Amino acid sequence: MGKAHSQAWRNVAAYFDVPPVEQRVLVGRDADQVARAAARFGWAEAATDWREVIARDDVQIVDICVPGSLHAQIAIAALEAGKHVLVEKPLANSIEESELMVAAAQAARARGVQSMVGFNYRRVPALAYARRLIADGRLGTVRQVRAAYLQDWLADDTAPMTWRLRKETAGSGALGDIASHAIDQVQYLLGDTVTEATGRLHTFTVQRPGPDGPEDVTVDDAAWATLTLAGGALASVEASRVALGRKNSLRIEVYGTDGALAFDLERLNELEFLDGNAPATEQGFRRIVVTEPDHPYVDAWWPQGHIIGWEHTFTHQIRDFLLAIRAGISPSPSFEEGLRVQRVLAAIEESAATKPVRL
Amino acid sequence: MGKAHSQAWRNVAAYFDVPPVEQRVLVGRDADQVARAAARFGWAEAATDWREVIARDDVQIVDICVPGSLHAQIAIAALEAGKHVLVEKPLANSIEESELMVAAAQAARARGVQSMVGFNYRRVPALAYARRLIADGRLGTVRQVRAAYLQDWLADDTAPMTWRLRKETAGSGALGDIASHAIDQVQYLLGDTVTEATGRLHTFTVQRPGPDGPEDVTVDDAAWATLTLAGGALASVEASRVALGRKNSLRIEVYGTDGALAFDLERLNELEFLDGNAPATEQGFRRIVVTEPDHPYVDAWWPQGHIIGWEHTFTHQIRDFLLAIRAGISPSPSFEEGLRVQRVLAAIEESAATKPVRL
Amino acid sequence: MGKAHSQAWRNVAAYFDVPPVEQRVLVGRDADQVARAAARFGWAEAATDWREVIARDDVQIVDICVPGSLHAQIAIAALEAGKHVLVEKPLANSIEESELMVAAAQAARARGVQSMVGFNYRRVPALAYARRLIADGRLGTVRQVRAAYLQDWLADDTAPMTWRLRKETAGSGALGDIASHAIDQVQYLLGDTVTEATGRLHTFTVQRPGPDGPEDVTVDDAAWATLTLAGGALASVEASRVALGRKNSLRIEVYGTDGALAFDLERLNELEFLDGNAPATEQGFRRIVVTEPDHPYVDAWWPQGHIIGWEHTFTHQIRDFLLAIRAGISPSPSFEEGLRVQRVLAAIEESAATKPVRL
Amino acid sequence: MGKAHSQAWRNVAAYFDVPPVEQRVLVGRDADQVARAAARFGWAEAATDWREVIARDDVQIVDICVPGSLHAQIAIAALEAGKHVLVEKPLANSIEESELMVAAAQAARARGVQSMVGFNYRRVPALAYARRLIADGRLGTVRQVRAAYLQDWLADDTAPMTWRLRKETAGSGALGDIASHAIDQVQYLLGDTVTEATGRLHTFTVQRPGPDGPEDVTVDDAAWATLTLAGGALASVEASRVALGRKNSLRIEVYGTDGALAFDLERLNELEFLDGNAPATEQGFRRIVVTEPDHPYVDAWWPQGHIIGWEHTFTHQIRDFLLAIRAGISPSPSFEEGLRVQRVLAAIEESAATKPVRL
Repeated sequence: MGKAHSQAWRNVAAYFDVPPVEQRVLVGRDADQVARAAARFGWAEAATDWREVIARDDVQIVDICVPGSLHAQIAIAALEAGKHVLVEKPLANSIEESELMVAAAQAARARGVQSMVGFNYRRVPALAYARRLIADGRLGTVRQVRAAYLQDWLADDTAPMTWRLRKETAGSGALGDIASHAIDQVQYLLGDTVTEATGRLHTFTVQRPGPDGPEDVTVDDAAWATLTLAGGALASVEASRVALGRKNSLRIEVYGTDGALAFDLERLNELEFLDGNAPATEQGFRRIVVTEPDHPYVDAWWPQGHIIGWEHTFTHQIRDFLLAIRAGISPSPSFEEGLRVQRVLAAIEESAATKPVRL
Repeated sequence: MGKAHSQAWRNVAAYFDVPPVEQRVLVGRDADQVARAAARFGWAEAATDWREVIARDDVQIVDICVPGSLHAQIAIAALEAGKHVLVEKPLANSIEESELMVAAAQAARARGVQSMVGFNYRRVPALAYARRLIADGRLGTVRQVRAAYLQDWLADDTAPMTWRLRKETAGSGALGDIASHAIDQVQYLLGDTVTEATGRLHTFTVQRPGPDGPEDVTVDDAAWATLTLAGGALASVEASRVALGRKNSLRIEVYGTDGALAFDLERLNELEFLDGNAPATEQGFRRIVVTEPDHPYVDAWWPQGHIIGWEHTFTHQIRDFLLAIRAGISPSPSFEEGLRVQRVLAAIEESAATKPVRL
Repeated sequence: MGKAHSQAWRNVAAYFDVPPVEQRVLVGRDADQVARAAARFGWAEAATDWREVIARDDVQIVDICVPGSLHAQIAIAALEAGKHVLVEKPLANSIEESELMVAAAQAARARGVQSMVGFNYRRVPALAYARRLIADGRLGTVRQVRAAYLQDWLADDTAPMTWRLRKETAGSGALGDIASHAIDQVQYLLGDTVTEATGRLHTFTVQRPGPDGPEDVTVDDAAWATLTLAGGALASVEASRVALGRKNSLRIEVYGTDGALAFDLERLNELEFLDGNAPATEQGFRRIVVTEPDHPYVDAWWPQGHIIGWEHTFTHQIRDFLLAIRAGISPSPSFEEGLRVQRVLAAIEESAATKPVRL
Repeated sequence: MGKAHSQAWRNVAAYFDVPPVEQRVLVGRDADQVARAAARFGWAEAATDWREVIARDDVQIVDICVPGSLHAQIAIAALEAGKHVLVEKPLANSIEESELMVAAAQAARARGVQSMVGFNYRRVPALAYARRLIADGRLGTVRQVRAAYLQDWLADDTAPMTWRLRKETAGSGALGDIASHAIDQVQYLLGDTVTEATGRLHTFTVQRPGPDGPEDVTVDDAAWATLTLAGGALASVEASRVALGRKNSLRIEVYGTDGALAFDLERLNELEFLDGNAPATEQGFRRIVVTEPDHPYVDAWWPQGHIIGWEHTFTHQIRDFLLAIRAGISPSPSFEEGLRVQRVLAAIEESAATKPVRL
């Protein structure tokens, strides 16, 4: 993540007209490692004490890429020190921490200090364009959304234990890590909010090898949910880390009364769109290569048909963050939006505690 | 359905070595209509009273294509009269009727009279081949199944009321009509049975125009479920009649520890297969065109790459039915298997009665 | 081919309102074999002498499925006997024979006797619909066509010698067998005629095992051509029998000033269409599932999304043949159109005799 | 091009272990413009006189992104001044200039000064991996290649005249601009050289609006060729700038005796591979997402399934160039390889001067 965020800071000004920005200090735990990384990724300095860095006058922005359990502490301190803050998703591991962060963000905002949570897939041109099509009414009333985030890095039963598989460090498994992206997208694309949820969680591999023998996996490998949105749409969400062969497949389908959309993150430069108002004989999902100058973000890039990579979701995120800071407006997704996703995750967990019906 | 079943009876012997069979009598309610249909579709005679036909000595097989509410009555009578019976899916509209039909089937079976329920998608070559790959262990242990049956014939809010949208005649909506196919496939492909279910049902359009003004739609437009299988796999099932742009898209994905599969009924001659034991650099979903002589059913058809149509799921069904009758064995899916699907539908409905968690 | 033609005759009246037709006599060389085939495929009688059958008063139509070297003889005799004639493509193995057949067809036509050559892919609904879109101007002026017919049944060097690989029996190889389909489509889709050609032919495997040892392959394994059309478009044509993994892939792309199309016979129920008049941000090849009632031929078939098979290109061909006979008009493609394809093949062969430029 | 090359220089060291490199001077014609571009794209200085810059002691590498007519002059001067040279493709506009460049490159190479021509698509991971599969024998003997480079920026008849459409400045049209990429790929993938060619060129729009009225277009809009390779394979090449809807679609298919490949630059992170040695029932083109650590170049990038963009073909090119310089070996493609492509282009033009066969 640090590598991807660094490239965004290093490159954003080559493509977009943003306020001048310098890569001042990279902070890490190991002095040697962070020094090497700073040199490699274009940072002027390296440091190991984030509190000292936050205190510096020549630092105006803090970009937080650490495990979720540390988000609240750093973000709140930085906001209180008057630094604009970008924090990786999910906002935090608990509702409580998230609420504290929202309070800090609101206080800071009143002083002109901005904050943002890094649901970077909002900055995929195809998804930003999808949102525009929906907002423009091209789908009519949206009824049904199908969102699935499928990965397979836990498909192997012998893959080792990590902090991501312990509830105390990770909060949850596929649910918080990747279903959160899907849930944010549902709300983002529809410009709507979730009001109800059902859910189910499952752990296929309940023990994994640790350094001192088998350890219990205490988070989910896969998650399923249905969500009701305030506007009446229903969404299904599915997330898995054991979907063999799917590497990073966030697939989203949106069905409305007048149109439909389909997207897959493994082909992030494409969007499929069906116009339900075309004559029946001419209807079909069209594969739009989202590389036209009038597509969101694209005029900064290459000629038509020349695709961009995953990392530029971060480049676009930094662009939007910097422009909001310059304009003195609150960037989106705000900490409040991050909290809203956390509440949905909590509702899914609550629902998942109910036993299924036995046949 | 009558048209599709008729073509199967008319053509099966041109492709497969089956016992000789004649299209004796077509039964319908309107004498003129049924006479015309009989002539068109190759039946020697037409009739309007199914009881009379069942009583005939020159009739050995009864193929039932009527609304589900009439299944039990006709099927039981036919079985009692010693006729082999093929009945369209779902087996019946209620568990009670289904149980009566199972009892009749078991009694008949003891006398050498066979019965079968028409989950015709078991006879898609690609799906029969998928089952073989799974049974051969090519996927390892199956963990996750994603099944969705998406149609859009109710996407239009002004589409008229029909008997299919009334609970008393149709039993349920998308759930019984199309989710039942998906559920049967999950059990068929894995050779396993569902032990638990969660579910949700929703009706997007609650009133539709009838002949005398608006009428209430009393069945679901869409359904969602998660299913636990005895062997430990979990399946998600989604069905919709409002998924604009999806005409007849039964999509199934199966993820195991050693391989994965993907299928879409709109491209029923293809199966995607990923071999998880290939080197990582060479893994990928391969698009198998299921038209090789060694694929199930295919040696009867055309040279490689020459695809077959949807209607031949019925041709294959008749083949298997006739061969089972000749061999004196019970064809599959049996009425018991049909009942098992009904029990899953009932569990989903029961679970759907629980309120979602409100945020 | 006989099997596929038989199914068309057996089923056409179940789907289309055609004049009543009976499957009278199947003719073959081996009395036993032809008797069995007749029984299997629905023919009332079997015979071994085609001249006798042509002389029968109760035969009105002759459908010729024999090697190309026999086409002229049988077709001309049948036409002279006053029988309507359908002959498989290509029309004949030589220009000379083709011209004799055209003369016979013209004489017969003057007496109300019809004839047709079986370029069955004109009856793929998606291709008939493609022609309609082009004729309606949806592509503007067509500039460029890319047509490739790829198969792989000769990819194996050890596949045995057959009559299809000898110039004296087959006329040519991939060129006459499959490039001819592509060439017919180019002219059919554009409603235009070829005026110029360049070409190249190649044989990758020059000897193959025969019953008495290796034999020389005297036809091409693959062919390439460029064609100029009278209207100014240029088409490239490529045909191969060694394109490993392509079973029956006739792929056609058409690029005009206002739109574009793409098709693949392995997915014959689909057509991709790009509307160049849509806003740039919304352009993309849309995958039309050609199963709507208003698509050509489709109203006879199944509900939307329920695909048909390759064999029904023949069913549609018989329909159109029968309707033309009833209407007393000349069906298309006529023998003249078949001859036109032969002339293009001859021009390609002539061009292929020129040596390439050596570097 | 300058923007894309600059990003490669700016970022290469963040991903790859290359010798330290600084972006010293950007050279352009307009002092103001080049100063702004230098600031934006990370160059320390700007200049307008390339001769002065070449003379500087603190410049060791010259990267040439100018129209082809200037390549020879600058490249030869730079090589003579002892600078390593990277020049954009095509090598030059004429065989004569190309030969002079090759001579200069050979002389420089003897002094340890390296040179390279920028066929950047050799650095697409999927294509580098395709070459590896072929070299490893996974396709057996390659027989047939189909390469097409389709764009549509001239589909609009009213698009204005530019230097790219005049023979004197551009050399040729689609042929030199994009077919050259396809030809280089054919030779690169197969590790083979073209020995014979046939060709055809066409200009669909013969006049275009210039500042003072209509001007003649003197280069081709589209090109077709067949190529013989020394090893016995045949390749077809097609290039077009009027293929409406294709933005940057370099499609390559390779068919061998034991396997086949397919690629499309619009999905440059994917490669389709068919293993002809798998059982017939299991064969199919598998879609490999080329983002595994063991795929070429990929270990420097993101986790599996996280795709990279078009611009990193240049990043990889710089990496390979720098590593070759450090190792004191000649990078590939060399100027000799660039010349070889020019000779193929010339042979195609020569063949295209022959009239097609008229029907």
